[in-house]
Amino acid sequence: MERLFDEELKNLKEMLLRMAGLVEQAIDLAIEALKEQKEEPAREVLLHESEINTLDVEVDETCLRLMALRQPMAGDLRFITSAMKITSELERMGDLAVNVAEQALILARLPLLKPLIDIPHMARMARAMVRDSINAFINRDEALARSVCERDDGVDSLDEQIFRELLTYMMEDPAAISRAVALILVSRNIERLADHATNIGEDVIYLVVGKTIKHHIDKKREGVPS
Amino acid sequence: MERLFDEELKNLKEMLLRMAGLVEQAIDLAIEALKEQKEEPAREVLLHESEINTLDVEVDETCLRLMALRQPMAGDLRFITSAMKITSELERMGDLAVNVAEQALILARLPLLKPLIDIPHMARMARAMVRDSINAFINRDEALARSVCERDDGVDSLDEQIFRELLTYMMEDPAAISRAVALILVSRNIERLADHATNIGEDVIYLVVGKTIKHHIDKKREGVPS
Repeated sequence: MERLFDEELKNLKEMLLRMAGLVEQAIDLAIEALKEQKEEPAREVLLHESEINTLDVEVDETCLRLMALRQPMAGDLRFITSAMKITSELERMGDLAVNVAEQALILARLPLLKPLIDIPHMARMARAMVRDSINAFINRDEALARSVCERDDGVDSLDEQIFRELLTYMMEDPAAISRAVALILVSRNIERLADHATNIGEDVIYLVVGKTIKHHIDKKREGVPS
Repeated sequence: MERLFDEELKNLKEMLLRMAGLVEQAIDLAIEALKEQKEEPAREVLLHESEINTLDVEVDETCLRLMALRQPMAGDLRFITSAMKITSELERMGDLAVNVAEQALILARLPLLKPLIDIPHMARMARAMVRDSINAFINRDEALARSVCERDDGVDSLDEQIFRELLTYMMEDPAAISRAVALILVSRNIERLADHATNIGEDVIYLVVGKTIKHHIDKKREGVPS
């Protein structure tokens, strides 16, 4: 019985790892589409998202089943409810990657505004945060979870900097406006991706330390250029 | 024992209702700040958000306690895990209202771009969706939950229309760019508020009907002007 439960927890972890892997790939594909003005990788993001959504439902159902049938003790219960929160975060990240891909599809048909450097850099930062947040969860690694939360500020600053730069482009050339707005939305979506990784980091700290740091971290909020 | 459990479930519902009420007020205050270029209501939004965050933590802890101590049966368990998802949605809505308030603070110091009609209209739609989604949860009202999900399209179209209109403003007058971008972000944040209410509606349908419609509804995604 105990062994079966461990087996099921392991299965749960594997599903979350698979979801995180798909999110990482979706980010890469969306950025590739954006950078190289290709439609194909953008369309692949949609397939990834659909797989992420299927896994999200499976994780939820597995968690409910584990809670109902095994009546886990406090520690395991907290782990399972954390898994339910984390799968929601990953599902939202899938949506955000799709948002980026859809902007990439719009931009693929227009002349490139400028070679993209900062946005891909920001996407790599967010991607690493996704991976680290899930590894922190799987290994109950508080230090790694904290490092994820700390890195969020760097992503926020980069988003802010990109925002200001694109405003300048728009001021100088009205013909650049729709493309610049599309890139602002891309940047904002990546910034939110990093926020969701940070949420996972906070959940992990809660899980390991047993008290909440949610709402105590002085982090910049989504969607605010300040 | 059974009676105590019912009492605790009632308490849980009341906390969620209080949170939803605070979210609704926060939306109103943010829009008032925006429309009348006042700073005071925008600052009040921050106080509301902090109260929402406190309630979010309390709801989570109540749910964990209920699950650990009462070992509820399948139906109650699903209700409690739904409550945990719903409190996260409400907490995010608080963040989004803060985003709007922060844009209002920026815009309060600048000349009004134009009298605001559509954005307050959209905010009223989103606000009603918040209220209805929570009532649908409390009363297990599937029809009301479905109506929330259906109304999301109307909000998305309005967001789209506002986006196009503001693009035109920017094209015509570069001096309008920062204000127009701020309003695009406001509109996008309200659109996301409605998305979160829709998520709650989907959770309620799942709770009542027992199967997921998540990921099956063909809804527009956040952050995509298409």
